[in-house]
Formats: sequence, structure tokens, C-alpha cells
Amino acid sequence: MSLTELSAPEIAKSASVASRRLATLSEESRNNALTILHTALSENRDYILQANSRDVFSASQAAANGELNQSVLKRLDLSRPGKYEDMLQGILSVRSLEDPVGRLGMRTLLDDGLVLERVSCPLGVLLIIFEARPEVIANIAALSIKSANAAILKGGKESSESFTAIAEVISTALSKTDIPIPAIQLVKTRDAVSSLLAQDKLIDLVIPRGSNDLVRYVQENTKIPVLGHADGLCTAYIHLDANLETAVRVIVDSKTDYPAACNALETLLVHEKALDSILPSVAEALLAKGVSLRCDETSKAALTKSLPPAKAVLLQESSDGDYDTEFLDLVLAVKTVSSQASEVLAVESAITHINAHSSKHTDIIITSSKEIAETFMASVDSAGVYWNASTRFADGMRYGFGTEVGISTNKIHSRGPVGLEGLTIYKYLIKGDGHIAADYSGLPGGKEWKHKTLPITH
Amino acid sequence: MSLTELSAPEIAKSASVASRRLATLSEESRNNALTILHTALSENRDYILQANSRDVFSASQAAANGELNQSVLKRLDLSRPGKYEDMLQGILSVRSLEDPVGRLGMRTLLDDGLVLERVSCPLGVLLIIFEARPEVIANIAALSIKSANAAILKGGKESSESFTAIAEVISTALSKTDIPIPAIQLVKTRDAVSSLLAQDKLIDLVIPRGSNDLVRYVQENTKIPVLGHADGLCTAYIHLDANLETAVRVIVDSKTDYPAACNALETLLVHEKALDSILPSVAEALLAKGVSLRCDETSKAALTKSLPPAKAVLLQESSDGDYDTEFLDLVLAVKTVSSQASEVLAVESAITHINAHSSKHTDIIITSSKEIAETFMASVDSAGVYWNASTRFADGMRYGFGTEVGISTNKIHSRGPVGLEGLTIYKYLIKGDGHIAADYSGLPGGKEWKHKTLPITH
Repeated sequence: MSLTELSAPEIAKSASVASRRLATLSEESRNNALTILHTALSENRDYILQANSRDVFSASQAAANGELNQSVLKRLDLSRPGKYEDMLQGILSVRSLEDPVGRLGMRTLLDDGLVLERVSCPLGVLLIIFEARPEVIANIAALSIKSANAAILKGGKESSESFTAIAEVISTALSKTDIPIPAIQLVKTRDAVSSLLAQDKLIDLVIPRGSNDLVRYVQENTKIPVLGHADGLCTAYIHLDANLETAVRVIVDSKTDYPAACNALETLLVHEKALDSILPSVAEALLAKGVSLRCDETSKAALTKSLPPAKAVLLQESSDGDYDTEFLDLVLAVKTVSSQASEVLAVESAITHINAHSSKHTDIIITSSKEIAETFMASVDSAGVYWNASTRFADGMRYGFGTEVGISTNKIHSRGPVGLEGLTIYKYLIKGDGHIAADYSGLPGGKEWKHKTLPITH
Repeated sequence: MSLTELSAPEIAKSASVASRRLATLSEESRNNALTILHTALSENRDYILQANSRDVFSASQAAANGELNQSVLKRLDLSRPGKYEDMLQGILSVRSLEDPVGRLGMRTLLDDGLVLERVSCPLGVLLIIFEARPEVIANIAALSIKSANAAILKGGKESSESFTAIAEVISTALSKTDIPIPAIQLVKTRDAVSSLLAQDKLIDLVIPRGSNDLVRYVQENTKIPVLGHADGLCTAYIHLDANLETAVRVIVDSKTDYPAACNALETLLVHEKALDSILPSVAEALLAKGVSLRCDETSKAALTKSLPPAKAVLLQESSDGDYDTEFLDLVLAVKTVSSQASEVLAVESAITHINAHSSKHTDIIITSSKEIAETFMASVDSAGVYWNASTRFADGMRYGFGTEVGISTNKIHSRGPVGLEGLTIYKYLIKGDGHIAADYSGLPGGKEWKHKTLPITH
């Protein structure tokens, strides 16, 4: 780790060169580096927290002057109970994960003495752009080392004191390991982001960790593949045969368990035949949790009939824009799905709405019908599609991945919660003994392909 | 299939909607469509070849006037022996491949009654831009249908008569199948490429099939992920312990088997201690095949000493640019790798050259040392890295994939020869029974994750 003063092309170039060396280090070398990193961050806790307190002090003043959001202040503060311990524990968790590098995914005997192997390998160079959270630096350094990727880290200005201190500690620690120094570089210069985003020949993946605006800025200003999501507009559809209790539990959890999360529910679609039977209980439970319901005309009319007047008065009318809005707050857009000629058409129209309006993050259906659920799960084009389960399960830890790099709404490479595997790709290796292609040209007397799948052994 | 007159956003939108329906079709439906497609193209052979002959006639005139390359003319001509049969056979081959959609890649019991599955699914909408080869239209239609992706095909103007005829035949054929009409659209309007490349919200992958210039144009003018490669600058390194016969066979095959291919050899690196022992035989064999050798000073001096004067006189001096050039012809750049202090440093410097100059396509080493080969294979950052085997093996058919969408030098999603698998991604499905995230918050009395890997059964 070094706190770099290089230009963007120099940073990217040195990271790229270092990444090739890193790619050849053994799992033991990489795990050993994580142990040393953990020890150093543990031993220098006071030093880092002092630096962090200077950031928090400046940010508090900015917040008091209304120049900074209170939530940024909260994310900045490493001294909050458990936060530093979580950061340290995170390094050990990453260390304990299975090595994502060198995994054999395919092995084919092409012909006698000619073997093709597909082996996982690091992507190369990651660019991570983050805002306030200083613990991300340790987290990303650990993920990069484990996956044998070089990383360029660009932090936000609010946390610069913390970053400088953490970078210094990590730098000293890594100099005692096999990790090449430029493999982890911290960039502080304020104008470096756009010039780093231009290094698409040398940087293999950008991971923006911060606000939707940051992600959108990165997506729109680089040719480097971007892992992540700008929006998390999750939708639930209640079919007419939904179990009432399931509908209430799952919708309330999806909306209220953590409304500011990307996997929180933002739009509720309701089959018109469920407007009187299921929606009132769901609406009452949501209103009781303080959720504002923005309803289309049909659902508002139905609820106004069913709910006690004191509650019905809380209902709001939706505008078209509400069905394209990620509220990240206790607000939910409600829309009726017309059943028209058949139940199949109703689920089709829910699917059509979701594919047009959702952000391809996570969408769910509440139904008792396996057939309807399967149609929904096959047709909804999102990273996660659930049946009778909360949108809030969209999370790498909950999926059992051990760690999470981010949640991707991309359609290629990695989708949904991304674990270490998303930081790798593969290469094809062929081991031969002077084999040449001309021998397999199909001419008489030539050789024939065997193309025999071999067992994958390690 | 329809020959569309819609605007680019309309094309992309209708393809996107059709792609969702296509994603739900059974394997049987898709295979059945391929059978009908095959029959129709077989029955309308004369009609299509007549249209093609009009294209060939126009192109011949353009070629005679020097307005068109002869090789374009050759690629355009569907009546060349075996070409039409290969096109038809290609559809049946694609039909016989294992279904790439709906494959279970992961299955985890999150908790009792709560199961997470990772299932392969189509990407959505492919945009394929191609130049002269009219058979690509049938090939891509088949691949798209098999992988349940919608496809927008944009052909070159030289083959417009062929495309119109093939599109008409395919359109009539597909109307008798379950494939939605807008799932395969042919775009003829000349200015549509740039407006289609702007549809990054609706199109999931672009596959340019044509010249390096086309690929580069596409890469530089879209935010949609691009599958393919602009360059195929493949390099071989001959280590000092290489087996002489292996070196000669593999280098000659790599360079001369098909010099215009992307997997042909363009640069040869030679350990300085192999300049007198191995290089002369390799050079003689290459010169005998008519290959021009562009040598650095050291290798030229060594060869001038070793070769008979009549041959030595053919040697050329290299310029720096030769090591960054994809000749696609019987020309090879030769460079000496200095051994300096140790053999490890020699292989390191070959690796450094390759990582800096090759196009990350396919690079090879000729050595008798397993250790040296393994260092090389781990360190070279290319889609294919081979030991004692020809660069020419970099090919989907040779890898046993049954078909090839293209060869990717990307670092994410798909790398190397890409089969049907590269046209898919996955989604995560959760099946629950009213499960909510709040129950797993870690508070006392809450539920615990099981995270138990389940067997993958179909």
C-alpha cells in the first residue's frame, strides 16, 4: 500500500505490473499478508482512531453549518461501538474463505498428450471509488489481496485523515509481506477520478461504493466495466391466491426492515381480486409502521372502503413517477394489476410492469401457486427473483458468500450479490507436446479430436 | 425474424419485450424452431442463392473497379462449395448442444424452507453487427434461439440482397414456431448502427463480427458490453531448453497454418542462449514457408552467422512498431530475450514483453521445464496460455465447445473462445414460505442461518 503522488497513467501502469506478480503468489503468501495486515490494524487502533476523530471533528463542523449530511458523519465515525472490531474481524473472515484463484472449472482431453484446462485467475487491477466509510479501505485491501488483484483506492475528502493513517499502517505492514508495494495504492488527489476512469486499457473493473449519484457518475464516465448498481427499485406482486399472513409478513419486512437499503421494497403490485381480501391487512400493517402509501385510483378506492376512516385518510394518491422512484424511505407506491381475461394475463401484466420499471435488482411474488411463481421467476429479468420471501434477503452474507463486494445489476459477468468469485475470471491453459493445428485439418491421414471431459482434480 | 423499418429505440424496445417471452420457452420449443428454420433454409436454397448472386455480381463490379477488397467478395459468396451446407449443418449442430438455459449452478439451504438457487438464463438482447458473410445471419439466429436471447442483426451493405432473402425465409419459418416475431430482427438502414449502439438500457451485449476496424469502432462507440477482440497479437517464447523439433513444428504451425487468423503468431521471443541452438532451424523452416523475419539486432546477427548466405540475405531488421503489429500475413517479428543474471529473469522478461505488447489473446511458451512453463502460464495475462502447443488451437470448435460466438479478449464475463455459455448469465431464485429478514437479525431468540450446500439435481 502506498499513498501515491503519481499521475493516473503511472498509477494504473504500476498497479498493472504489480498485479501480474500478485497473480503468481501462493494462497499461503496471500493469507499470511492478511494476518500481518490484521495485526497491524489491531496494534495501531489508537493512532487510526485519532486520525479518524480529526475527520469527524471537521465533518461535525461542516454538518453544523449544513454543508454535510448527518448520515455521512455517521458513516465516517470509526469509533462507533463495534465498528473497528467489525473491520478487523472482516479481514479474518476474508482470510478464511476458500481461495478463489486457481480453481479448475473445466478439463478436456483434446487429444493424446494435449490437455485443455480452464483455471480461475484474478481480473488484474480494480479501481475502488468510495465516499465516507473509512473501513472500506481495509475491507477492499483484504478482498484484493485474497483474490490476488491489485487495487487502486480513491477515497472521499471527508475521510482523508483516516485514509492517510490507515494507508500508512497498511503500507508498513505489507512491506513485510510478499505483496508488491504498488499492488495497493491510495489516491488522494482530488481530480484523479476522471483521469483514472480513462485508464480502460490498464484497469479491469471499477467498483464504486457510495451514493447512487457516485455510481451513476462512474457508469457514465468510463469504458471500464463497472460493478454495482445505481438503483435498487424492488417490487413485490401479490397474486390473488396469496396467503394473507405471508403477504403481510413479507411485505412489511421488505419495506420496513431497513428502508434505506437497496434491497428495500419500493413498489407493490396487487392483483385486483386481492384488493379487498389481502391488501387491507397489508396496508394496515404498513400504516402502523408509519409507511406512506401512494396508491393508484383503484387500490385507493378499495382501501378507502375497507380501512377505518382514521386510517383511510392517510392514503395518498400516486403519480406516474412514483413507480420509477427509489424512495429509500417509509414510502411505498401501490398499483393495481388488472386480471382482464385470465390469471395468466394478470401475472403477465405484473411481469411487464416490473421489467419496464424495476432496476433489475430484486423482485418478489406472493402466491400459493407453484405454476404462477415459476412463470414469474422465469420472466422477471432481475438479479434476484423470490417467491414468498422478503426482498431483504438480497445480500452476500445472507446468501452465504462470506463477504460481499457489492450487488450487481449488470447483465454480464456477475449478477446479484457478488462475492470473491466476481473478482476473478478464467484463462485457458493448454499443455501439449509439440501439437500443431495442421494435424487436425480433417484431411485424410490427419488426427481426430478426442474432446473427452476429464475429471476435475486438484 | 422481421426486416424492420422501426427506429433504433423501437427496435431495441420490441426486442427487449420479446426477449422476456423467449426466456420462458421450453428447450423443446426452441429446438423445434431450429428444425423448422433448418428446413426452410434448405427448401429455399435456390431463392437465397439467386439473391446472393446479385450481391456477388454488384460486388464483383465494385472489386473490378478497385472499390472493394477481393477477400470481401470471397466472404460474400454463398455458392462456394460446401458453404451453404455448412450453414445448414451449423443449425443442426447448435440444436444438438446441451441447453444453456436453466442450468443450476448453486443450491443452498439458507434455512428450513428457504432455498437459494442460482440458475443460468439468457442475457436478454444481443446486437450483432457483421460485414460481408451472409451465413452469419443463420448462425446467429440459431445461437440466439438456442440460448433464448433476442437478437438484432445489422448486416453490411454488400450483402443486402442475401440478407433480405434470408430474413424473409427465416421470418416465414419462425412465424410457424413459438418464437415471438420481434425476437430476431434484421436492420438494414445504413445509419442505424450508432443509434443502436446508444440503446445501452435495452441491449445487453454487442457482438461485432468483422474486421478489426469494425470491432474497434464498436468498442469505442457504445456503453453496451462488447464481446470480441479487435486484435490478435499472439506471441511465442522459446526458452533455452526448448526441444528443437517441438520449437520448429509449433512455431511454423502457429505462423503459417492460417496467417490471416486472429490466433496466428505475430511475435517470436527467443532466449539469447537459444539463438544459435534453436532459432536457426526455426528460421530456416519459416523462410522455407515464405515468412519474412523482422529481427532485432542480436537475433539478426546470430542468424546471419548460422544461416547460409542465400537465406541470411532474406532477414530484415525490425522496428519498434513491429512488436505491436498484427501482420495477419507471412511476417514475423523476432526479438531476443536477454538471460541476464538467471533463467528466471529471462522468462520474466519474456512475460513482461508479452503483458505489455500482446493483445491478451493467446501466447505460448516452448520449454522442457515444467517449472518455467508454470511460471509463464500463471503470469501471462491472456485468454489462452499454452505450453508446447500451437497458438492455432485457440478456437471454440477445437476446444470442443461445439460452436463459437467469437473469441473474447475481455477480462470480464467470457474470455477466450466463447460458446453458448457466454450468451447466458444467471439469476438467483429464492423459494420461501413467508420468510423475513428481521428474523435473522442476530438478536436473541432470532433464527440462525443454515447455509448448507445442497446437491445440484435436475
